[in-house]
Amino acid sequence: MSVNLFAPEPGSLRLVHGVALGVAQAGIRKADRKDLLLIRLDDGAKVAGVFTQNRFCAAPVVVARQHLSMLDPGASIRALLVNTGCANAGTGKEGVAAARRTCNELAELLGCSSAQVLPFSTGVIMEPLPVDKIAAGLPACIADLREDNWFSAAQAIMTTDTLPKALSGQVRVGGANVTVTGIAKGAGMIRPNMATMLGFVATDARISLTLVRAAVAYAAQHSFNCITVDGDTSTNDAFMLIASGAAEMPEITDARSAEYAAFREGVAEVAALLAQSIIRDGEGATKFITIRAEGGRNEDECRKVAYAIAHSPLVKTAFFASDPNLGRILAAVGYAGIADLNVEKVDLYLDDVLVAKNGGRHAGYQEADGQRVMKQAEITVRVVLNRGAAAATVWTCDLSHDYVSINADYRS
Amino acid sequence: MSVNLFAPEPGSLRLVHGVALGVAQAGIRKADRKDLLLIRLDDGAKVAGVFTQNRFCAAPVVVARQHLSMLDPGASIRALLVNTGCANAGTGKEGVAAARRTCNELAELLGCSSAQVLPFSTGVIMEPLPVDKIAAGLPACIADLREDNWFSAAQAIMTTDTLPKALSGQVRVGGANVTVTGIAKGAGMIRPNMATMLGFVATDARISLTLVRAAVAYAAQHSFNCITVDGDTSTNDAFMLIASGAAEMPEITDARSAEYAAFREGVAEVAALLAQSIIRDGEGATKFITIRAEGGRNEDECRKVAYAIAHSPLVKTAFFASDPNLGRILAAVGYAGIADLNVEKVDLYLDDVLVAKNGGRHAGYQEADGQRVMKQAEITVRVVLNRGAAAATVWTCDLSHDYVSINADYRS
Repeated sequence: MSVNLFAPEPGSLRLVHGVALGVAQAGIRKADRKDLLLIRLDDGAKVAGVFTQNRFCAAPVVVARQHLSMLDPGASIRALLVNTGCANAGTGKEGVAAARRTCNELAELLGCSSAQVLPFSTGVIMEPLPVDKIAAGLPACIADLREDNWFSAAQAIMTTDTLPKALSGQVRVGGANVTVTGIAKGAGMIRPNMATMLGFVATDARISLTLVRAAVAYAAQHSFNCITVDGDTSTNDAFMLIASGAAEMPEITDARSAEYAAFREGVAEVAALLAQSIIRDGEGATKFITIRAEGGRNEDECRKVAYAIAHSPLVKTAFFASDPNLGRILAAVGYAGIADLNVEKVDLYLDDVLVAKNGGRHAGYQEADGQRVMKQAEITVRVVLNRGAAAATVWTCDLSHDYVSINADYRS
Repeated sequence: MSVNLFAPEPGSLRLVHGVALGVAQAGIRKADRKDLLLIRLDDGAKVAGVFTQNRFCAAPVVVARQHLSMLDPGASIRALLVNTGCANAGTGKEGVAAARRTCNELAELLGCSSAQVLPFSTGVIMEPLPVDKIAAGLPACIADLREDNWFSAAQAIMTTDTLPKALSGQVRVGGANVTVTGIAKGAGMIRPNMATMLGFVATDARISLTLVRAAVAYAAQHSFNCITVDGDTSTNDAFMLIASGAAEMPEITDARSAEYAAFREGVAEVAALLAQSIIRDGEGATKFITIRAEGGRNEDECRKVAYAIAHSPLVKTAFFASDPNLGRILAAVGYAGIADLNVEKVDLYLDDVLVAKNGGRHAGYQEADGQRVMKQAEITVRVVLNRGAAAATVWTCDLSHDYVSINADYRS
């Protein structure tokens, strides 16, 4: 089940010069499915990422962070290695050693240093990483390397996803056309906190590493950090931005330039659409819900309100039932943690329908109007706090029987 | 569905001298069910309560707080009026006026002042309170007033509860036997924050109002504030402690006395069992789960850890499936919000089974052992943080298909 989500046309995914992808069936957890992805980068690529803030971050997150920080000046990241089927999380020191061994194996095959390889894993937590199976799958990944392989790459990182998630855009930066192509995976354990489950966006832009780092943080804040399926922050979240520098253009080095602004928005747009595709494919999702909190004193309190609504099982089951039981939304606003909130100023809209005014049911509200909106597959909830000028948007889905089934049966 | 919850034997509920109860079928939302409860107190009773911290607190909460604070010295609360079917929440100024009108109507019938009546409501949010139906039901409540009417009272406050919740205890205070009898309701929208949906505990102890206030806060902290079904803090939570003073004993006035300590623990024990009965009757519950976080620096961080586990839809669906997918528990510990948590010190137990040691899967852990515990109807999860001496316990239930069904269909 998914909400207005369609598999990308393989031909619509623009290749990014300097970025090749290869996949393999390594049999990590299940047979006969792509479960290993290698992203190989030409020398000189700039790579930056944001990672989960879960204290139980997975071993590959520990190692990827370390490799990004220990890279020699002049050296660049040459490969990203992604496996599904095993998250290598909750695996202690052995897990970190296992993640390092996969980097060593790949570095040897590619002729680079181990620190130039970044590992990523997703799948079941607290199972040991099958290093031998991964090592055995690497030659097949290398043999499959092609720049026009993004669709297959998107398939290779799927777990409970029902459809691959991939997207391409072009953005005009100064006089040059820059390509931005990305893939993502995720459907459950989604409440990213710095990043999503796994998202990889590549561009051929020429841009300094400092600005790649700034752009990935900006894009995360406006995309993967605005979504939630179940409020569970994964141990393995990672969102990586790769800039190959293959485009013919002057290097972007000024954070205040129009070129950087255009680049940053182009990346953020691809990231936001990828993030939304995760919600559209949310486990058991039958509705895609945009929650916008407006009129707050600052963005933080708007995010609190939007997330309180997005995480409420009562609100989410009401959406599943298309039931305009809107008092549940007001109750969530009330416990969102704004200590001095004056509820007598709060207005609530469902799409264009004014439901509550000044904290109570709007006199002109008809349940039939609420019902009409609730039956839609895409719904916007708008809470107006009337205490300031800040706003924030969160995307989420409903809570259905299928969510329970999928997560009750995940390992069986 | 409920977990090891049984309707109380009506004969096991000890009456509390000075406290009479009467119920009626007022037809507030559905016909042919008890939906109105009057608790009438003899003159001189001491009453204190704790209420929801939801900013969208319901109109009756506003009025009850006001009446408790505006009472003249020498005057006492004479009646508590409870209706189901309509929460009178999200109803603005009209809702407050409606709650006041019900107090006025009852005060006139009882010959007391309106401020001596406390109103309580539970049911659907954002619907207007049917004051006329409630007023019309009051004479039947009065005609039904009896001190041995606790069982019927417990039935009258049920909404999605499958069984009435009531309990009696006796506690030795100094030389006297003090009776403590209570009722509660609640099954969903349960994550009390100062109190539960509705809980009423009465005692015949002679005790100062100051200490009744202290005891209700203490009991709430060790009972209703330790439970969660779905993390949704209700707009109508209220937990009231009534001391009729009818027992033959010297008045308790010293907070440091052995008498007060005995009384406080007696009240807290009845409150804790009532709170647990709400979880046993949690919407769709098939498992009763005790989550204990130990070895924290302070109680607050232990509560954060226990609640993060208790609120995780992934953990709750795994319990429903009896699936020892225990990495989900570690992931929740990791995002509980302890910024400097060293996950390499964290141990995890399922009942007596050591599952994870030093943040990773314990070498001796066998999945069959985890499976054995997960299949039980009652399970204790114990997380040892190994960073201090504080501990906290939270009680919760699993997330099942029935939770989704109940909340998707609640209003239909």
